[in-house]
Amino acid sequence: MSDLKDMVADYILNLPPYPKGREWRAGEHLIRLSANENPLGPSPKALAAITKALKTIHRYPDGAGGVLKEKLARRLEFPPDHIILGNGSNEIFELAARTFLQREEEVLLPDPTFAYYRIAAQAQGGRCVSVPLRDFKIDLSEIAKKVNSKTKLIFLSNPNNPTGTIFTRSEFDDFLTHLPSHVVVLVDEAYGEYVTALDYPLSQEYWQRERWIITTKTFSKFYGLAGLRIGYGVARKELIEHLEKVRQPFSVNLLAQMAAEAALEDEEHREKTARINEVGKRYLYEELTSLGLSFVPSEANFILVHFGPHVSQVMEGLMRKGIVVRGMAGYGLKEYIRVTIGLPEDNTSFIEALKRWKKGS
Amino acid sequence: MSDLKDMVADYILNLPPYPKGREWRAGEHLIRLSANENPLGPSPKALAAITKALKTIHRYPDGAGGVLKEKLARRLEFPPDHIILGNGSNEIFELAARTFLQREEEVLLPDPTFAYYRIAAQAQGGRCVSVPLRDFKIDLSEIAKKVNSKTKLIFLSNPNNPTGTIFTRSEFDDFLTHLPSHVVVLVDEAYGEYVTALDYPLSQEYWQRERWIITTKTFSKFYGLAGLRIGYGVARKELIEHLEKVRQPFSVNLLAQMAAEAALEDEEHREKTARINEVGKRYLYEELTSLGLSFVPSEANFILVHFGPHVSQVMEGLMRKGIVVRGMAGYGLKEYIRVTIGLPEDNTSFIEALKRWKKGS
Repeated sequence: MSDLKDMVADYILNLPPYPKGREWRAGEHLIRLSANENPLGPSPKALAAITKALKTIHRYPDGAGGVLKEKLARRLEFPPDHIILGNGSNEIFELAARTFLQREEEVLLPDPTFAYYRIAAQAQGGRCVSVPLRDFKIDLSEIAKKVNSKTKLIFLSNPNNPTGTIFTRSEFDDFLTHLPSHVVVLVDEAYGEYVTALDYPLSQEYWQRERWIITTKTFSKFYGLAGLRIGYGVARKELIEHLEKVRQPFSVNLLAQMAAEAALEDEEHREKTARINEVGKRYLYEELTSLGLSFVPSEANFILVHFGPHVSQVMEGLMRKGIVVRGMAGYGLKEYIRVTIGLPEDNTSFIEALKRWKKGS
Repeated sequence: MSDLKDMVADYILNLPPYPKGREWRAGEHLIRLSANENPLGPSPKALAAITKALKTIHRYPDGAGGVLKEKLARRLEFPPDHIILGNGSNEIFELAARTFLQREEEVLLPDPTFAYYRIAAQAQGGRCVSVPLRDFKIDLSEIAKKVNSKTKLIFLSNPNNPTGTIFTRSEFDDFLTHLPSHVVVLVDEAYGEYVTALDYPLSQEYWQRERWIITTKTFSKFYGLAGLRIGYGVARKELIEHLEKVRQPFSVNLLAQMAAEAALEDEEHREKTARINEVGKRYLYEELTSLGLSFVPSEANFILVHFGPHVSQVMEGLMRKGIVVRGMAGYGLKEYIRVTIGLPEDNTSFIEALKRWKKGS
């Protein structure tokens, strides 16, 4: 259990706005490129909705989240009873582990991937089996080979965190063909809204199958509401009903529901978010290339960059300039940094700091 | 499991602001006396804190809740590492069940009491053993008698919901003397801030003992923040560490933390809340007595009133006037209504409606 505790501590401590060992001057602007948050901030429509709802926060939220589910259903073109809301998509990972996992049953995970899947599975007594990435991509055929009669749950992050890579529709179709029907597949599409690749799987196609597939999405990334904690899962109705049985009725707070409803309808903020990410990505690709740094092409709002053995000096140097990025030692990628694509001026500050470091070394 | 589902449904559907079968005109003011919320609304200082924090909601919250824990620690005069924050105190009930309960182990519960304890225990596969109240009070000596080697967890609500009664310090001390050391006791003090009885147990005395006792408190009632979902538990450090192992790191949202910090320091709102409750309680006691209705004297912000066999007509009559109260059939108290102590004008509307009903019948 102490491993698990360390993982949780690592997971928490590595996230701003609470970095350790800060060296920039307190009060100075901090450029946070470490938690894959939306650098534009929350949608103005979401802020207006919260302000309007403020005087009702002494009331309990709608436990069923009816209005938000209706809005999501219209957007997804899928019935509302196929949707479950969560206190962040983290809650859905936890509900899946609690619903489908018995002690000693097996969970398959890509490695590296988002750290919380393992925490959720181990807290439930599940035995985690890691399957290494191949060329920074989730190796679906290797995962399929590891399935046995004890396998209960597979977590797949698409795009994968921290690599930003995706598996394609045909790869996923092929994977499902080889998968026994007793296995539950959770596909975490936390970064799905950023994907531009045309061969990205369309989740809607899978929710209708006679399979235990659940797709999770979040308002923490693209929609800029990480602080409010709201995500959702979509699956067959029977699967959703199983998850709802263990969810505490008021897990999603009132302001999160109101903000999410408004953010869904803020087309301008959505377009701006997508555009700024694409522009920033192209700029960073070019500059990293001309700095001679290799990186993994990303379908998300972050880039995994290879810095070699001096990675901790680089991170310290960035920190002194008030730039926070995410070290990857905890993910077994010691020589890498994961950097969130920020506002144009954030990206420029990051690149300028790297240029000075390159010159100095 | 279908019982459990019905319980959840009942629990959700009986709460405003989403009542079924509404008959008052839409848009009209609704007097919600059914969910024991603070009728004054949230603390103005909490609202100001939220407004100030609004532009940062695209950032993740502090997973450890450090600042709030420090403030709570100062107020409780107890170290911060003895405190766990939760997504409402509901999350702490759930964490306790997940941490301490194995399938088929026993949980002792007063009956009736707050419905969610049973839901949390059953979701974990625990076997619930109900111990009836005696004279509307939790029967600690009977609960002690039901303890056996399979007993793992005891939920006690003090004051008890829906009766508003308390157990005293000497009763609790006596109970603990007879309790084997392997049993975990969770004392839910959701309504503790309303208590005026001098023999109410001082939780601080128990946290230091060599016992597995955890006290939970909430910002949903007295502090008027039900919509934001924030509560906390206090216990020995080792017990807190066990609970933290299964908590998802970002379960408490950013605005809830900010609002709770501010609400703790809003002395004026606290005093007003206590005063309005005392004044309302005395008014309701007098009026109910002169209407010939019997009730259970309460240490909380609600009163359990006996209406006899015509209780559903009474509730319908109240609903037509836009007054929502809580029916108690789901708690096995068919002839009773639980009414939240409201603003003076709410209480008057409630009593006036009852007077008209009395005259008519």
